[in-house]
Amino acid sequence: MNDSVTQTERTRLRRLPKRGAFERETVNAILDEAFVCHVGFVVDGQPYVIPTGFGRDGEMLYIHGSSASRMLRTLSTGVDVCFTATLLDALVLARSAFHHSVNYRSVVVLGKATLVEDAEEKSHALEVITNHIVPGRWDDVRWPNELELKATSVLKLPIEEASAKIRTGHPIDDEEDYGMNIWAGLLPIELKTGDPIDDDRLDNGALPPDNVSNYTRRSWRK
Amino acid sequence: MNDSVTQTERTRLRRLPKRGAFERETVNAILDEAFVCHVGFVVDGQPYVIPTGFGRDGEMLYIHGSSASRMLRTLSTGVDVCFTATLLDALVLARSAFHHSVNYRSVVVLGKATLVEDAEEKSHALEVITNHIVPGRWDDVRWPNELELKATSVLKLPIEEASAKIRTGHPIDDEEDYGMNIWAGLLPIELKTGDPIDDDRLDNGALPPDNVSNYTRRSWRK
Repeated sequence: MNDSVTQTERTRLRRLPKRGAFERETVNAILDEAFVCHVGFVVDGQPYVIPTGFGRDGEMLYIHGSSASRMLRTLSTGVDVCFTATLLDALVLARSAFHHSVNYRSVVVLGKATLVEDAEEKSHALEVITNHIVPGRWDDVRWPNELELKATSVLKLPIEEASAKIRTGHPIDDEEDYGMNIWAGLLPIELKTGDPIDDDRLDNGALPPDNVSNYTRRSWRK
Repeated sequence: MNDSVTQTERTRLRRLPKRGAFERETVNAILDEAFVCHVGFVVDGQPYVIPTGFGRDGEMLYIHGSSASRMLRTLSTGVDVCFTATLLDALVLARSAFHHSVNYRSVVVLGKATLVEDAEEKSHALEVITNHIVPGRWDDVRWPNELELKATSVLKLPIEEASAKIRTGHPIDDEEDYGMNIWAGLLPIELKTGDPIDDDRLDNGALPPDNVSNYTRRSWRK
């Protein structure tokens, strides 16, 4: 296993290279915290960008969807994709409009997504994807039957050609602007979970399991 | 002004058309609540998906970035783009793995982004983008000077070929699964802002303005 992902001309960060990070650990931490990704692919020259769930197992990303969806039908032919996951951490409010920014962490993975055909790997991938939504959820629910497996396509994309991009810290204003009578600083933003809401048809008295009622991601705080 | 956006073969929702919405009001409400978008474009057959800030003025989307960035350099040549904004509302936790889902609202806009060349429109677009981050921020800060305007590229994309996709409500389980002894329901998720953090070099005694300390988006709740 490599400690770093491959930096190519395509993932090289042209601007602000100080924001770039290629360590596998950094890339994985962002992927694991992100709830959804945006997958880009091309049909007849037109790019499409679709939000979707995913999961990570080691150096492999798994994406799933309906076998009938345009994304899955297109991607399963083995086309180039761009997988992007983005976390927002703060609004960066500077003294000048120009230096406004956002603190964020994002990962871009380029490569060819391929269809998972092996039944065992497909089942494993669905477990990985389900547990990415709620850690441990797979063991709490009914597993897919034959029909459901058939209706679901799973794609895999190796985390090889990848890069992370991170901005942290306060605004960087022009030196002569620091004296202006303007408030500047950060407005933190984060994705938070609320209290679980019982399904309308829940009549078995079941309580939300601990992995739901105390839901947490790496830095998802309740 | 049209009340609906154009539904084409490309934005037609193939699967679950009940989740599709093409009313301009619905599309706009999602765009206005979304903080960042993901823009997809193609270079040498490879799709790229980049998170970025944006703003909306009527039926026009504005995106900005460094004139030197790959995205801006590519897009300013007038290539096809896919603009996608996604809001997450809840994890949908069903009794079966198969019926797990996410409540979300997303908008996809297809079209050709073009460079804003007119100085007045460019300045207006930067105001729109700044105020998309924090409503009213433009009037609180120093406006861009000549050099900054030159270093910034602004693109526009008309909201013409667009669609919204929305999932709401509880999980829909298979009828025979409702009797299972499994908790099912929703786990609400939302992007929330924390308390403003003063810039380290803020020494003028300025307090966060009301549009920061009481920050709100449509359904962004503090």
